[in-house]
Amino acid sequence: MKIGVLGSGTVAQGLSARLAELGHNVVIGTRDADKLRGWQSSNQRVLIGSFAETAAHGDIVVNATDGAGSLSALTMAGDENLADKILIDVSNPLDFSDGFPPSLTVFGKDSLAEQIQRAFPMTRVVKTLNTVTARVMTHPLEVANGDHHVFISGNDTDAKKQVTEMLRSFGWINIFDLGDLSTARGTEAYLLLWVRLYGALNTGMINVKVMK
Amino acid sequence: MKIGVLGSGTVAQGLSARLAELGHNVVIGTRDADKLRGWQSSNQRVLIGSFAETAAHGDIVVNATDGAGSLSALTMAGDENLADKILIDVSNPLDFSDGFPPSLTVFGKDSLAEQIQRAFPMTRVVKTLNTVTARVMTHPLEVANGDHHVFISGNDTDAKKQVTEMLRSFGWINIFDLGDLSTARGTEAYLLLWVRLYGALNTGMINVKVMK
Repeated sequence: MKIGVLGSGTVAQGLSARLAELGHNVVIGTRDADKLRGWQSSNQRVLIGSFAETAAHGDIVVNATDGAGSLSALTMAGDENLADKILIDVSNPLDFSDGFPPSLTVFGKDSLAEQIQRAFPMTRVVKTLNTVTARVMTHPLEVANGDHHVFISGNDTDAKKQVTEMLRSFGWINIFDLGDLSTARGTEAYLLLWVRLYGALNTGMINVKVMK
Repeated sequence: MKIGVLGSGTVAQGLSARLAELGHNVVIGTRDADKLRGWQSSNQRVLIGSFAETAAHGDIVVNATDGAGSLSALTMAGDENLADKILIDVSNPLDFSDGFPPSLTVFGKDSLAEQIQRAFPMTRVVKTLNTVTARVMTHPLEVANGDHHVFISGNDTDAKKQVTEMLRSFGWINIFDLGDLSTARGTEAYLLLWVRLYGALNTGMINVKVMK
């Protein structure tokens, strides 16, 4: 499948490498291609593009940009390049303006995922993977042999089904469909607990399992 | 032990009944004693008091009032009745002004627990149990045989130790010390995910387990 990954940080690099390893045709999109040259030298199956080239390439597009800059990055990617596509939003609206621990730039009665969906109404936004660190996103079996949950939120059932298949290809066993995209308010807010779990355990190789 | 439980709802009733069952000397505090007469007829070991009487009674005081009204309830309870005591804050600052699902009245760079601590600096505030429904608070073994976590936040190590003993007496096995009281920002924000888990599973008899 042709996949475009927007972003140049650890999350975008990790997702691009994993998707390429799984046989997909991946372009990673950045404002500054030079930042990715070193990384690409050991990930030659992934091509580098602008945000717009990357979005145009993908049948599925992944938003792995910083949450605070996601709306502007997606605007640069272009409405016409995102229309009628699935956009997997793995970002978090973290606000580091007062340092660590972060707060969120949007919260409670709205979410970044919903802001993106409103800005790109022709795109099918699916929120997922934002509750775990980059390595766990793509290698869930490395935490407790995969005995933990990833959440998925979105308004389009078929889009969630396709994203679920991608998650399974990463190794995810327990995929929890929370419902429509407004449920991303829950997973985005959870980040404020996640940063405290990270602080207490001194590792990001963690996740939660829903018990009942 | 002499324990005062502030509040008259399901959480306050459940905690009072359980603490009395475990042999503690419990007073439940309310603005309106008539609301609790029916409940008390089958919980006669629990006495009813005003907020001030209840706080004065307790060596440990529990804030089980609605989060939106907690600061005013604690003000009625009286600074002098709370000074030098442990206050277990199990409330959540839920904002139902737009209906369900709720938002929070305080969030991100502050928490209700910290607001209470600032208002009552002589009191040792410990935040816990706010991430589960009333029944799970007092009967954790009824969810997955207790194979899940409760979180605890507070600035005073000895106070957290005493609260941990109380949690163990309820049946809690996995008690996760997140750190100082600012970590309550995490567990309070988590409520926005909890309400979505509740919505998806249609039961409150749930919790999360931290996996690593």
